[in-house]
Amino acid sequence: MGAKRETVTLIGAGLAGSLLAIFLARRGFRVEVYEKRPDIRRESAGAGQAGQAGHAVQASQAGQPSQAGQPSQAGQAGRSINLAMSVRGLHALGQVGLRDEVLAMAIPMVGRLIHPVEGDRVLQPYGQREDEVIFSVSRGELNQFLLDAADREDGVRLHFNARCTGLEFRTGVLYVRDDATNHVHSLRPDRVIGVDGSASAIRTAMMNVGRFDLSQQYLTHGYKELSIPAGPDGAYRMERNALHIWPRGMYMLIALPNLDGSFTCTLFFPHEGEYSFASLLDPRQILDFFKMQFPDATALMPDLATLYRDNPTESLVTLKCSPWHYRDRVLLLGDAAHAIVPFFGQGMNCAFEDCTILDECIETHWPDWGSAFESFGRRRKMDTDAIADMALANYVEMRDLVSDPGFQLRQKVGFLLEQKYPDRFIPRYSMVSFHRFPYSEALHCGEIQEGILRELCASISTADQVDWNMAERLVGERLGAQVTPG
Amino acid sequence: MGAKRETVTLIGAGLAGSLLAIFLARRGFRVEVYEKRPDIRRESAGAGQAGQAGHAVQASQAGQPSQAGQPSQAGQAGRSINLAMSVRGLHALGQVGLRDEVLAMAIPMVGRLIHPVEGDRVLQPYGQREDEVIFSVSRGELNQFLLDAADREDGVRLHFNARCTGLEFRTGVLYVRDDATNHVHSLRPDRVIGVDGSASAIRTAMMNVGRFDLSQQYLTHGYKELSIPAGPDGAYRMERNALHIWPRGMYMLIALPNLDGSFTCTLFFPHEGEYSFASLLDPRQILDFFKMQFPDATALMPDLATLYRDNPTESLVTLKCSPWHYRDRVLLLGDAAHAIVPFFGQGMNCAFEDCTILDECIETHWPDWGSAFESFGRRRKMDTDAIADMALANYVEMRDLVSDPGFQLRQKVGFLLEQKYPDRFIPRYSMVSFHRFPYSEALHCGEIQEGILRELCASISTADQVDWNMAERLVGERLGAQVTPG
Repeated sequence: MGAKRETVTLIGAGLAGSLLAIFLARRGFRVEVYEKRPDIRRESAGAGQAGQAGHAVQASQAGQPSQAGQPSQAGQAGRSINLAMSVRGLHALGQVGLRDEVLAMAIPMVGRLIHPVEGDRVLQPYGQREDEVIFSVSRGELNQFLLDAADREDGVRLHFNARCTGLEFRTGVLYVRDDATNHVHSLRPDRVIGVDGSASAIRTAMMNVGRFDLSQQYLTHGYKELSIPAGPDGAYRMERNALHIWPRGMYMLIALPNLDGSFTCTLFFPHEGEYSFASLLDPRQILDFFKMQFPDATALMPDLATLYRDNPTESLVTLKCSPWHYRDRVLLLGDAAHAIVPFFGQGMNCAFEDCTILDECIETHWPDWGSAFESFGRRRKMDTDAIADMALANYVEMRDLVSDPGFQLRQKVGFLLEQKYPDRFIPRYSMVSFHRFPYSEALHCGEIQEGILRELCASISTADQVDWNMAERLVGERLGAQVTPG
Repeated sequence: MGAKRETVTLIGAGLAGSLLAIFLARRGFRVEVYEKRPDIRRESAGAGQAGQAGHAVQASQAGQPSQAGQPSQAGQAGRSINLAMSVRGLHALGQVGLRDEVLAMAIPMVGRLIHPVEGDRVLQPYGQREDEVIFSVSRGELNQFLLDAADREDGVRLHFNARCTGLEFRTGVLYVRDDATNHVHSLRPDRVIGVDGSASAIRTAMMNVGRFDLSQQYLTHGYKELSIPAGPDGAYRMERNALHIWPRGMYMLIALPNLDGSFTCTLFFPHEGEYSFASLLDPRQILDFFKMQFPDATALMPDLATLYRDNPTESLVTLKCSPWHYRDRVLLLGDAAHAIVPFFGQGMNCAFEDCTILDECIETHWPDWGSAFESFGRRRKMDTDAIADMALANYVEMRDLVSDPGFQLRQKVGFLLEQKYPDRFIPRYSMVSFHRFPYSEALHCGEIQEGILRELCASISTADQVDWNMAERLVGERLGAQVTPG
């Protein structure tokens, strides 16, 4: 395949773009990648250090003007400095032989460590087998690693400071501006894949093609990055192998571990209202609020007021559109096609799984690119819609439900059911994070599971009181036909 | 009010723009109106003739490049040549003293005249009182009339061939290109209202402001205008005072009367599939299809094949967005804020009602424009969402349900209930078309009414079999609290 050395043009060398370039090169295609940002491997002095690398990525974006038709916030939405890598991302990396190297720069997180305002911290495990963990990895480091890997591929050419400023569908002309010289080149690529994120210039161009459905919905909550620095000699000031959550009902703070001993913290908070980014501005007020709500975290954040003041408040968007392709010439993939909120830790995993699935569609249909693109959208759209909805629902789970004894009980009973019916009851979180079931199936099964768990837990207060006859009946009736993991 | 002669800048001199200019002038403001099209009063030779004027409007748009971020089809969506004017539109016209003149150029339609493939035509009345009719009016004629009326107002200035090419929110600079000279003027208006339709340039610009929610969803069906010419001496070849429908389940043909004896016909049809615009291309095939499905109409359309070939296939979009305003400086109104499909005949009526309500908000809040704009959105958004959803549902009603005996029975029983409980049971269609209840209330009451009617009609086959004890109970239980019409 690709023997004729066809060229595929990618717009964007972020996580999805650099991984997709590797997939395409392995199939024998030439790949031209245009990235509007500078080469983060050269810009970032602290390339080897988690956190700092991520900051460099963010800083280099902040100065960019926004794309037409898209608020600047969208480009930042979900661009957290730490990512939670799970099985879908790892599987795609494994397909191109990069899994182990990425795992070497990742920190396993075994569960959610819940920090109440008062009382003991509680660990809520994500899974129940030793390998059922997710991995904290620095976005900046991972991107640099994937760029290096793409650079090593025969046929991949990376162009930086090369901003797509438009795509004319009628003529097929693509405009790319060299941000150093301000010169605009016009190209005529045969095939363009927009992997340019939630503020995608390619998607904006697709709005000029007829009957393009689009929905972009912002959360009324936004986020701000904060930090807990490492202790002496890079010591971790909190449990290293966990995702920390301070759930406070209408908002929350979270923290993910970095390799250097620091934690990247994120405050998810309403934009407007009594307690909100709009109302919390004064340094003393901020400190008082944090001390009251997140006392243990605040004690570990010496730069809190400065970081709160200096770091931007970002927005969170859910973006759905259709179709993702235009004939055999243009395709959207990753956040450009389906940006989601970060609460299920699936944005990058979903984009990497896109690469897996597009690769299968190309294998089946090449050289018929139109069919490959069409079948990619047909296979994938209902799944990306499903993870978008699950990610929104997970915000309520993380900021509120995790503190609820009923939720905690259902989670424990869910693990018991999985032990007893491992082929039929796999908790929804596990279906998404530890297996590669289609997202839409996880959504569907999750609804059934929730019904079963609510019935089983309605009149009990601890997991050892489960009525197993009832469980047998409910699982048998409602989850008889569950398929095996992909 | 407006004593200081503040200036309000309108983008768009379509139906909503020209009426809003009149409203604002009456409040004493100066109004500058920029319209991208030429002055249709000069362009259209057949200004006095319905149909032709409309065609001129459409033709002058067809050559325009589409706005960035919006497919060209969107600009056409819903731009039918005939409109169904009902109470909301007439009320707004009445507020500025133009109601009677508009009625003089309109044709009352008393109901839907259903044309089955075989068998007798049936008239389904819209209402049950003599004044419960809707009015067929030519879009082109009405627009010209409103432009003349706006021109007569002190303080209104109309600029044609003046296309808004951008609005910078940070600086407030508005760019207007003179399409004759291609010169771009930059202006700094205090207040801009985008009344520039479903392809709104102002809305596109608002996408660059943070957290702008948008949903645009195209129907899988589109439409094409056709025509039944007048008979000898301007005679009508079908019943004049009706909206004609040929309901065929998955698609339909409709016809509205023009003053000159002709009918404007519209085929609503799937874009793709076995019977669709994509599959029906050959003239013989088209004629065969029409003869089979719409035999009586086909006999009256001598130019069918030519019109079908030459008239464009247009798309239908539902567009929702939020917020509609930016501080005290920018507002969206009419289709620019909430484009809907045409099946409830409410697009123009809704836009005119927007004028009524914005005028009230200005009266209450002026000179605080920010509060006026904010309260306009707060009062209106749920109502425009409601009519958008009712308009979508009405497509199924028009193309399919009207042929269903169960639907027909429920409609008759609904009129009986209105006779008996005139303060509590006003059929949904009447609430929307003959009263000025908020659309959201019509949607809500309509759902309750549908439940009552389904229960009352479940075991009867004619309207005289209604169980009035049951009716008394159901209406009492479920519609006790209906408010009086606005």
